Amino acid sequence: MSKVTIKQVAPFVLLSLIAIAAIFVKSDAPTTDPSTYSAADITWILVSSALVFLMTPGLAFFYGGMVDRKNVISTMMKSLVAAGIVSVLWVVVGFSLCFGDSIGGFIGNPSTFLFFKNVVSGAPALQGGAPLTIPLLLFSVFQLMFAIITPGLVVGAVAERIRFTAYVLFVVLFSLLVYAPLAHWSWHPNGFLAKMGVFDFAGGTVVHISAGCAALAGALVLKRRHTHIEHREIPPANVPYVLIGTGLLWFGWFGFNAGSALSAGPLAVSAFATTNTAAGAAGLSWMFFDVVRGKKPSALGFCIGAVVGLVAITPAAGFVAIPQSIFIGAFAAIVSNVAVYYKQKSTLDDALDVFPCHGIGGMVGMLMTGLFATKTVNPAGPDGLLYGNSAFFFIQLKAMLIVVAFSFVVSFAIFKFIGLILPLRVSKEEEAEGLDATQHNEEYAGKNIALVAS
Amino acid sequence: MSKVTIKQVAPFVLLSLIAIAAIFVKSDAPTTDPSTYSAADITWILVSSALVFLMTPGLAFFYGGMVDRKNVISTMMKSLVAAGIVSVLWVVVGFSLCFGDSIGGFIGNPSTFLFFKNVVSGAPALQGGAPLTIPLLLFSVFQLMFAIITPGLVVGAVAERIRFTAYVLFVVLFSLLVYAPLAHWSWHPNGFLAKMGVFDFAGGTVVHISAGCAALAGALVLKRRHTHIEHREIPPANVPYVLIGTGLLWFGWFGFNAGSALSAGPLAVSAFATTNTAAGAAGLSWMFFDVVRGKKPSALGFCIGAVVGLVAITPAAGFVAIPQSIFIGAFAAIVSNVAVYYKQKSTLDDALDVFPCHGIGGMVGMLMTGLFATKTVNPAGPDGLLYGNSAFFFIQLKAMLIVVAFSFVVSFAIFKFIGLILPLRVSKEEEAEGLDATQHNEEYAGKNIALVAS
Amino acid sequence: MSKVTIKQVAPFVLLSLIAIAAIFVKSDAPTTDPSTYSAADITWILVSSALVFLMTPGLAFFYGGMVDRKNVISTMMKSLVAAGIVSVLWVVVGFSLCFGDSIGGFIGNPSTFLFFKNVVSGAPALQGGAPLTIPLLLFSVFQLMFAIITPGLVVGAVAERIRFTAYVLFVVLFSLLVYAPLAHWSWHPNGFLAKMGVFDFAGGTVVHISAGCAALAGALVLKRRHTHIEHREIPPANVPYVLIGTGLLWFGWFGFNAGSALSAGPLAVSAFATTNTAAGAAGLSWMFFDVVRGKKPSALGFCIGAVVGLVAITPAAGFVAIPQSIFIGAFAAIVSNVAVYYKQKSTLDDALDVFPCHGIGGMVGMLMTGLFATKTVNPAGPDGLLYGNSAFFFIQLKAMLIVVAFSFVVSFAIFKFIGLILPLRVSKEEEAEGLDATQHNEEYAGKNIALVAS
Repeated sequence: MSKVTIKQVAPFVLLSLIAIAAIFVKSDAPTTDPSTYSAADITWILVSSALVFLMTPGLAFFYGGMVDRKNVISTMMKSLVAAGIVSVLWVVVGFSLCFGDSIGGFIGNPSTFLFFKNVVSGAPALQGGAPLTIPLLLFSVFQLMFAIITPGLVVGAVAERIRFTAYVLFVVLFSLLVYAPLAHWSWHPNGFLAKMGVFDFAGGTVVHISAGCAALAGALVLKRRHTHIEHREIPPANVPYVLIGTGLLWFGWFGFNAGSALSAGPLAVSAFATTNTAAGAAGLSWMFFDVVRGKKPSALGFCIGAVVGLVAITPAAGFVAIPQSIFIGAFAAIVSNVAVYYKQKSTLDDALDVFPCHGIGGMVGMLMTGLFATKTVNPAGPDGLLYGNSAFFFIQLKAMLIVVAFSFVVSFAIFKFIGLILPLRVSKEEEAEGLDATQHNEEYAGKNIALVAS
Repeated sequence: MSKVTIKQVAPFVLLSLIAIAAIFVKSDAPTTDPSTYSAADITWILVSSALVFLMTPGLAFFYGGMVDRKNVISTMMKSLVAAGIVSVLWVVVGFSLCFGDSIGGFIGNPSTFLFFKNVVSGAPALQGGAPLTIPLLLFSVFQLMFAIITPGLVVGAVAERIRFTAYVLFVVLFSLLVYAPLAHWSWHPNGFLAKMGVFDFAGGTVVHISAGCAALAGALVLKRRHTHIEHREIPPANVPYVLIGTGLLWFGWFGFNAGSALSAGPLAVSAFATTNTAAGAAGLSWMFFDVVRGKKPSALGFCIGAVVGLVAITPAAGFVAIPQSIFIGAFAAIVSNVAVYYKQKSTLDDALDVFPCHGIGGMVGMLMTGLFATKTVNPAGPDGLLYGNSAFFFIQLKAMLIVVAFSFVVSFAIFKFIGLILPLRVSKEEEAEGLDATQHNEEYAGKNIALVAS
Repeated sequence: MSKVTIKQVAPFVLLSLIAIAAIFVKSDAPTTDPSTYSAADITWILVSSALVFLMTPGLAFFYGGMVDRKNVISTMMKSLVAAGIVSVLWVVVGFSLCFGDSIGGFIGNPSTFLFFKNVVSGAPALQGGAPLTIPLLLFSVFQLMFAIITPGLVVGAVAERIRFTAYVLFVVLFSLLVYAPLAHWSWHPNGFLAKMGVFDFAGGTVVHISAGCAALAGALVLKRRHTHIEHREIPPANVPYVLIGTGLLWFGWFGFNAGSALSAGPLAVSAFATTNTAAGAAGLSWMFFDVVRGKKPSALGFCIGAVVGLVAITPAAGFVAIPQSIFIGAFAAIVSNVAVYYKQKSTLDDALDVFPCHGIGGMVGMLMTGLFATKTVNPAGPDGLLYGNSAFFFIQLKAMLIVVAFSFVVSFAIFKFIGLILPLRVSKEEEAEGLDATQHNEEYAGKNIALVAS
């Protein structure tokens, strides 16, 4: 016990203070007229929230299966722990920053929903101005699940070297300084991107481009793993983990995209169909393109491709027709596949290709939305370039560039700042021994087995 | 790159052409009166579609855990890749063949819904003539998930020796030539089996008998694995994978069967209850019967039994009462258990018992429907033999024989045809080394661990 | 075959008799006015039932990943097999004992719903007297899923030494003699705890305290594992299994708690939000508290903490406000963490800490409900101590003590009784060799790998 430092005690003390303060928040009674609620919409968004939650353990396995076997647990755990950190942060101030009264279109007022005050009794309008048919609290829960998975996506870039404490701090700062502004800009009715006429159905900018650019920043600030410098190829620890991860991500993504309709109607159905179609086409496209490039078709390739397709269809899901989603998926997979190829030839150590897959996949998705969106599918949405509306395409392009710049610059600053107050990376010896053992005193099954066997 | 042949490039080119063609499909505006829609029914079928989707990764783990450790990934991947192939095929022409305007009761007109045209604006009638309370597009998405898993079921029979390319081609041909006709016969209002008075609630014929018979055909055409010829017993690679696979299958089957009510009412509830009861009874029955036969109760036995119970209740789920579902599950498990026993004594190398479990399980289910169906449970359904309607029992028997014959003969021809244009099997050396390494250049965790340990 | 004894044949014969008897149960026609049904509520409870079902495979992985690698399958299988046993038992008599006509507030009349008679046509009132908006059959299915997981929770305490047959018998007796009375007392409108004014939203007493106390009884009766006596520390077989188990439990718990609102309205939403918040806060609290105590933050710690938070919020989920759920989760995790610490210093061999986590977690939850419940959140619920109602706090305390005493004493008697007719434990040699091989003739992947490697 004598070794415990103030820094180590700090998170526990902070959490305890929050927990104690929370006792004294007076509950507010629901004042919204429940007659505006639709029980079916409530059901669909409850289910969708659960589905999006499940993406986080899914992501843990998707990433955890790809790293070296001595880093499986530390990689997985970082996804899951975001569910802890962001869930608490969201109640305290996160939701308020995203969806509180708009301060100039740039950020929500932190006091609007501080400690979830006014969330039960509140009733804001949606982007189009239509009233919600679900309780604001449910909207908040659904949105929380997106906020959880976004920092989790960044893990893939900084895996196998970031210190756990530095990661915990990153999740807090990224959520407050990158995610919250972006969610406000895009999804609050007065957000400045929403006002600009940008359409991002389920998080192409807010979730994927932001995570992809934070990943790029993280990889640059943290620098390369020693295995990367030495060009050592480490086989993925467990490909079946990647498969189950992909299955859970795909499954959960139905909630992510079709749930973003916020209502159980034809729009949700359409988003569901485009999501599945793009994923399927992208998985095949990546795998077949690998073959064209002289590689063998691989489970890993199919899985990564499917996830890229899911990323790319995310901003477009509720605005484009089903046939076009075949193209979006197939095309995005090729772009990301090529991007991964060039990344591998570079010195950039984005360990699990978060930037080429989520960053670039999200960019492709935003532009495809600008291309293929049609009011035939969603009368409340835009028409795209293919339907004669070139202005919208350039709005999407502009939004994309703004989000890329903002999320990269702020994330870069966050990583630099953390590096000033904490060591960002584990030591070279710890890296060699593996983060599971050195950071968490845990070992993935394989190690024990090997010990037993030898 | 120089080694890439035209045959290897073909799938990529074909997919690209489909993707490009799809760009030019004009979206159709919804014309159906949405006032006939039920938001609750939409929610339930959205959820059910997601649940049935999850069965495919579930199946990957159910099968992948049972094979030799050098074939885990290749087995799993074949389930998942069906989600890619069939999702695209479905939009292009698959749904149209199943549910397009009936050509003499035998097949849907491929042009009715070519590239999903008219799917958004369409509104067909159900088997009983009642209008759908969900968008046709949602019905199509739900049906797609059944079409995905059916070829995936066949994988179990041909595992550990089929070449990946041959499998990909099989999925395409089976979907078009076996699955689509069967779905049309049974589930299109003008399908010839539907007209005959056959009732198959959720796919006893269309999914399980067809997959079971295709599995038998595949095992016969591909011939035996060398390990099978040499009577070498290979322990299952990972029993926990079989358990999680079973858990996901059971979970997803609630969508498969209760979703087939296509409405969130008492019929869905009844189908949910019969499904769970039959699964539980069948798991116990298989396990306890193993003990009677002098074996130890095993996790594998419980899991396989539960799946057989789920198969057998599938055609009956919405037509029989809950108590009778105990009998259906318990009885089907014994029949399949005995069938597996005789298969093991034969020279048939149906690697993971797809025919005895899905084929025979489906047959038992069809006949049990003929026996136990009652209008008390489902007024729109039939009465069975036990309720004095022997005619219905013989209709079910006749339908069963027709589907067995059709699916076996056509699947046999498909495998033979593929064998004419491609090598069906990997080489003997590749089989010995394992399909993971030789077909996909991937290795299941275990191998690496062994290498590290040795 | 000659070795098969009457005892070994008995379960098969019994199941067969049940299955055959079930054939002759006449189906009852639905007589309830379906106009009182809400299709949205039906959808939500169908989904919730499926979600709670998935907790059982989730639990299998949560526990299976923590034991020694030679006991993984036997541990997992015990969770799953409860889904078989309890599903059949429930139809035969279990539901009737829980929710049949009350015999003096202590137990349901077994004949009310014997073999599910009257379940389709029935329509009971809820605790508050309000009529159900879902079919009674669906209520029964939803309740079944709770009855399945409860004996499964006990597995963690008696793992690595209990004989499979003894466990099977335990599940039957515990379900009939502990679970059914408790469910009747708390959730039947005439149950004596319900009449006393006790509120247990989703099973703090019925599920968690009862399982926790049965676990304590089981650990005491079965005595210690030899590894425990010898103070040998066995590393968990597979931490990723614990992670996926936690993910599935957390996911399924949304159905467990929010489904317990039995309706898709604001109450379900509130319970969903408190559930997620408590889980997140508890995971962090456990992990950070570990650090304060000089340990490394671990994935295992986060997972166990999150589950404790889920346990503690269970009785409170629909009665407390979201901010207070941060405190409930964070506080419960510290209490259980400390309890685990003292248990580890004792000679009690509750292998996977079921009593400190579920038993004590459930107790904390019951008392926190007494403290923080407020009519502002749930007008049909109580006000707690913090809102001036000290009487309610003492009712909860009294109920807690009654349930602790009842479930411990009866479970203790059940284990003693089983020990009289069957050996409770495997032999010392079998324990050393592992239960997977000796009880089920199966081996977890690891063993084979080790054999291959050595």
